[in-house]
Amino acid sequence: MKKITVGAFLLSMMFVGVNAQSLKSPDGKFEMNFQLKQGVPYYNLKYNGAVVVEDSKLGLRLFKDSAIKFASEIAKPDDAKFDLNNGFTKKDEKRDSKNETWQPVLGEKKNYINHYNELAVTLDQASTDRSIVVKFRLFNDGLGFRYEFPQQKNLNYFVIREEDSEIDFPTDMKAWWMVADYDSQEYQYQETKISEIPAQWDKAFDANASQKLVKNAVQSPLMLKKEGKEPLYVNVAEAAVLDYPASHLEVDAQNFKFKTHLTADRQGAKGYIQTPSVTPWRTIIVAPKAEEVMDSKMIFNLNEPTKYTDTSYIHPTKYMGVWWEMIIGKSQWAYSTAENVHLDKTDFAKLTPNGKHAANNTKVKEYIDFAAENGFQGLLIEGWNIGWEDWFGHSKEYVFDFITPYPDFDIKMLNDYAHSKGIKLIMHHETSGSATNYERWADKAFEVMNKYGYDAVKTGYVGDIIPRGEHHYSQWTINHFYRIAEKANQYKIMVNSHESVRPTGESRTYPNYISAEAARGTEYEAFGGNKPDHQTVLPFTRWMGGSMDYTPGIFQTKLDYYFPGDKRFVKTTLAKQLALYVTMYMPLQMAADLPENYKKHMDAFQFIKDVAADWDDTRILSAEPGDYVITARKAKGTENWFVGGITDENKREYTVDFSFLDKGKKYEVTVYEDGKDADYIDNPQSYNIYKKQITSKSKLNFKMARSGGFAVSVKPVN
Amino acid sequence: MKKITVGAFLLSMMFVGVNAQSLKSPDGKFEMNFQLKQGVPYYNLKYNGAVVVEDSKLGLRLFKDSAIKFASEIAKPDDAKFDLNNGFTKKDEKRDSKNETWQPVLGEKKNYINHYNELAVTLDQASTDRSIVVKFRLFNDGLGFRYEFPQQKNLNYFVIREEDSEIDFPTDMKAWWMVADYDSQEYQYQETKISEIPAQWDKAFDANASQKLVKNAVQSPLMLKKEGKEPLYVNVAEAAVLDYPASHLEVDAQNFKFKTHLTADRQGAKGYIQTPSVTPWRTIIVAPKAEEVMDSKMIFNLNEPTKYTDTSYIHPTKYMGVWWEMIIGKSQWAYSTAENVHLDKTDFAKLTPNGKHAANNTKVKEYIDFAAENGFQGLLIEGWNIGWEDWFGHSKEYVFDFITPYPDFDIKMLNDYAHSKGIKLIMHHETSGSATNYERWADKAFEVMNKYGYDAVKTGYVGDIIPRGEHHYSQWTINHFYRIAEKANQYKIMVNSHESVRPTGESRTYPNYISAEAARGTEYEAFGGNKPDHQTVLPFTRWMGGSMDYTPGIFQTKLDYYFPGDKRFVKTTLAKQLALYVTMYMPLQMAADLPENYKKHMDAFQFIKDVAADWDDTRILSAEPGDYVITARKAKGTENWFVGGITDENKREYTVDFSFLDKGKKYEVTVYEDGKDADYIDNPQSYNIYKKQITSKSKLNFKMARSGGFAVSVKPVN
Repeated sequence: MKKITVGAFLLSMMFVGVNAQSLKSPDGKFEMNFQLKQGVPYYNLKYNGAVVVEDSKLGLRLFKDSAIKFASEIAKPDDAKFDLNNGFTKKDEKRDSKNETWQPVLGEKKNYINHYNELAVTLDQASTDRSIVVKFRLFNDGLGFRYEFPQQKNLNYFVIREEDSEIDFPTDMKAWWMVADYDSQEYQYQETKISEIPAQWDKAFDANASQKLVKNAVQSPLMLKKEGKEPLYVNVAEAAVLDYPASHLEVDAQNFKFKTHLTADRQGAKGYIQTPSVTPWRTIIVAPKAEEVMDSKMIFNLNEPTKYTDTSYIHPTKYMGVWWEMIIGKSQWAYSTAENVHLDKTDFAKLTPNGKHAANNTKVKEYIDFAAENGFQGLLIEGWNIGWEDWFGHSKEYVFDFITPYPDFDIKMLNDYAHSKGIKLIMHHETSGSATNYERWADKAFEVMNKYGYDAVKTGYVGDIIPRGEHHYSQWTINHFYRIAEKANQYKIMVNSHESVRPTGESRTYPNYISAEAARGTEYEAFGGNKPDHQTVLPFTRWMGGSMDYTPGIFQTKLDYYFPGDKRFVKTTLAKQLALYVTMYMPLQMAADLPENYKKHMDAFQFIKDVAADWDDTRILSAEPGDYVITARKAKGTENWFVGGITDENKREYTVDFSFLDKGKKYEVTVYEDGKDADYIDNPQSYNIYKKQITSKSKLNFKMARSGGFAVSVKPVN
Repeated sequence: MKKITVGAFLLSMMFVGVNAQSLKSPDGKFEMNFQLKQGVPYYNLKYNGAVVVEDSKLGLRLFKDSAIKFASEIAKPDDAKFDLNNGFTKKDEKRDSKNETWQPVLGEKKNYINHYNELAVTLDQASTDRSIVVKFRLFNDGLGFRYEFPQQKNLNYFVIREEDSEIDFPTDMKAWWMVADYDSQEYQYQETKISEIPAQWDKAFDANASQKLVKNAVQSPLMLKKEGKEPLYVNVAEAAVLDYPASHLEVDAQNFKFKTHLTADRQGAKGYIQTPSVTPWRTIIVAPKAEEVMDSKMIFNLNEPTKYTDTSYIHPTKYMGVWWEMIIGKSQWAYSTAENVHLDKTDFAKLTPNGKHAANNTKVKEYIDFAAENGFQGLLIEGWNIGWEDWFGHSKEYVFDFITPYPDFDIKMLNDYAHSKGIKLIMHHETSGSATNYERWADKAFEVMNKYGYDAVKTGYVGDIIPRGEHHYSQWTINHFYRIAEKANQYKIMVNSHESVRPTGESRTYPNYISAEAARGTEYEAFGGNKPDHQTVLPFTRWMGGSMDYTPGIFQTKLDYYFPGDKRFVKTTLAKQLALYVTMYMPLQMAADLPENYKKHMDAFQFIKDVAADWDDTRILSAEPGDYVITARKAKGTENWFVGGITDENKREYTVDFSFLDKGKKYEVTVYEDGKDADYIDNPQSYNIYKKQITSKSKLNFKMARSGGFAVSVKPVN
């Protein structure tokens, strides 16, 4: 129990009921109370009568209203009279509710249900004659709230010094967290109590291509668990982060309290606002079962429906890539041995080839052949375009032109060849963080894509952002990401962005933004390695606001296969790699390994060929953050189901109850499981495949190896 | 004489002749000596055997070569082993010379002469195995030098911490200077000794819309004068500032020494360089006569010839503008009373007009009529497009779209009307400093210009730059200015940029970049006022690298004419306003006042109608910085001459010797001079006009009032 003084306790008791508004969820289990205490706004949250979130403060601190000498304004200390966090009285309240069903263009279920009660409180600040609105939406799985700034005489433009939305928990909780950083999410998750975060913080990060850490703060989504006889799972995140910086969470470890900490730009400003405007939603998902948290669609529900008039070009895509061989170091993105190239001057045909350029006509055709033979829709090729010789680490603004291929990449021939085989190539636009340069080229680049028949692009933002005043998660850069998505829509192009900001439900508004990286993916197995429990945390964190392009499917997990003595390895069994296609929702779904490795295990590869990427239904059968995830999904427009189960560094058994199948029907399952002696370190490629007939009454038992898993495809039999 | 120790003196003597290279100007009057002293590079300059510039150091300090964690690199202290300023040995020297005549597209003379001797010294830095080149060009009017960075194994990318090119004068000198600022040149010139600069510095600036002052540093071009029996005039500036930040000059007042100080970005970096690369030229123009300094074309000569294939669309332009009435406050740029508009949402037709919007159909047609009747080529209209209601001071990125007119501005009708009268409208693209937004709209905006028949645009950059990490004179922003000029060339559009970086001769390379502001112009007479000597300094400073759009021609100098009690006034006589059209070289030439004021003085207005804007010849008859300028120019392709004379706050007499005219010919002059009782404060509108016949043997005497002048148009008689 945290320490509070008797006086503070009595004081807080005094104000209960005075100037307080109460809101309940549709099923009545959640209750949110809003109140002003001496003009300062607070909210709390109860679940089944018990306090989940104690009285927590709300508000924002502003810079003196945007003045001519703005740069010098930033340096001045805070002056509370300009802040929107005190001196309020309640002017008004409006209540509303909604219960709608909507269909995502690509999703985990055919229908998402958006059911909430809403309370909007208008607060007046008499000293400045301004008012703001705090809007609460209470769902059956938790709370979302945001600030709204109506256009008014005394509130037109302001610059945020900091948003101070607190979430004050009554007790310590277990937390799965990542260090806060304005530029990267590529860190390992830590599992500690909230109270232990500061002690662990300094050990919790490694180097990154672009990095601006915030000490003793963590990133969102953040997963928490109140342990005990009646455990409660809590997820803290945000929804609809648009034209606003992404938020991190400062930790007050002694009081189990978190507070928003927005991403600054290099000047130190945290958001340039023109009214009318709204902030992102701060979300608190709460459930007695971890599975219910993972299953929550609150973050998507809080985003606006799309205004796109045509979404027919958006489709699930299974793809392979000329990519992993560069990641592990077997080939290169660059074509030549040059260390310094000028896109508008260098004659690339005259450079000396390095002999390791993967994106060449011969190799690409081989990949096209294999991908097409095996039913994939797309082939990503990285390193196809001029500029890779010096693309990284030089703050080079004009680093790529996105349209000129290397001499050994015949863009027309290869696209025609792919189309003749029934697949499309997937474009690659690595920006090197140079967003201003990408904006200059985007129209031409998208025109080239249309010309040659590409309909999807993977973008990348490796390295510090240009404009050199911005971070990856600053307001300006977030606007850039969605400006690109909107422009891509004009060209009917789907976007998968890497090193971008984590999605917070925007796929509802921008359905062509089908995936993103924004966490440590499979590539990190070749860099520092991911912990074996990494994939059991991600669905509770990174996935909450949108799909991740995790790029799994590595069959040759040990890299000493390529480089004798190399100690790097993918820290899972082969069977677990298969299971990831189900435990992770990926409408854009990569089989990332080299064809030669799939050819050696075509029996296991069959699962990847069969698994769907778009779903009518999803059941989280069983899951515990950091431990295991067992998921079943029904392929869209079919009666086929797929089941996947994964575990962490521990062996684990699980029995799948197939009662989610239709009663009275016969199904055939193909099971892919760890071999008896499988182990992610000692024997990762040991797996067992068998078929069996089952019904909805069947149960199947699986023994997962250390960092192992199982995958099951389920088809009805006639 | 400055203090130096005996030891230092002896030491410097010792090194003369050791490891030294000497260069002479074509006429032999200048001598430059380059030497390494203990591996540190120095140069000096002599004129007619006397030292003009003492041994002055050269070199640059770098950040540790661009590394992954760049942002943290900036914060580290300098480590001399990475710098390019020590440990050199001479590897090589190359000599060259050039004597060419070239024709500027628009210019002060038909031919410019580029005549120099060149010395390029290659310096090796053994400790880092890198080499650089220092290149000197010695002209008959002074020295230019720059650094060159060849592409080499150990020098590919680097980031500049600071360039330390010194100019060390042997004695104190009179200086006409302006405070250094990364964002503005809109300050008054100060006239003090070099030694007095620090004492005067704090009093030498006022507020500005965008400002980042550099204490005890001054801007370039800087004008200097060694007084005494044999005076020497010195101009310190730079040429060809491209893909590099603009430089200011730090002052060591006790040692009469200046050192380059580059404009930083907000991170503190001063240039991101990829080899091969060259710096701008540092220029030191020296002459015994002030007139010869003003006449120097060195800065243009040091720029590259243009690569434009078609310059036929570039022409001198005399224009009027719907502008001054907004500057003085009689009308507004904005259309409505709204304080907060959203370009993509607000219906401007539904807003309440403020009744003061100048750019409306009726008024514009009146201006078109007057301009066309009086032989002008163009009419600028500001405030024609949506967004002016909240354009300034809010760091609003999407502030203008550059294509949507206000409801009362019929862009098609007005252009058709203007064309029917034989004039073109001049476009206005105020960016509000939001350069990223302007780049997004530039193609559409230029397409609109082509569609409606505009061929010239005035751009503006009022307020802090967006990207919010950059200053007006940072490398990124300078690249932006020339990126726009190049793009405008693709659309055959001429550019006149305001609040941009001062030109440093780029009109040779980008001839469509015909003018710029980048100093206090006539508009400042309505803000703080310009000192009466301001226009006698500008030709020695601001004009050295290119024309300024000074927008003179104000006949109604007292503003209490509009606003009883208003103390603002243009600090010149009317006759001086006429003279400015000759003393200032302006291929883009505005008659800035309201038609109603010209109508009251059509006799004086005749000079503005007659004066040319493009020249075959220019003679600086007599000039002294801060005191007076008397100039004669011959109109291109004609036998007509124009003469203009201006003075500062002192009355002054001057006798014009017309020996520059062709011998044996008869000419008729029309003289416009201050009336006998004219005075810029008490009686500015008193002027006298007379005609007379003269020949090349004639001399005419003029009595200029305080801040007065005279203008003469000279036509041959049959």
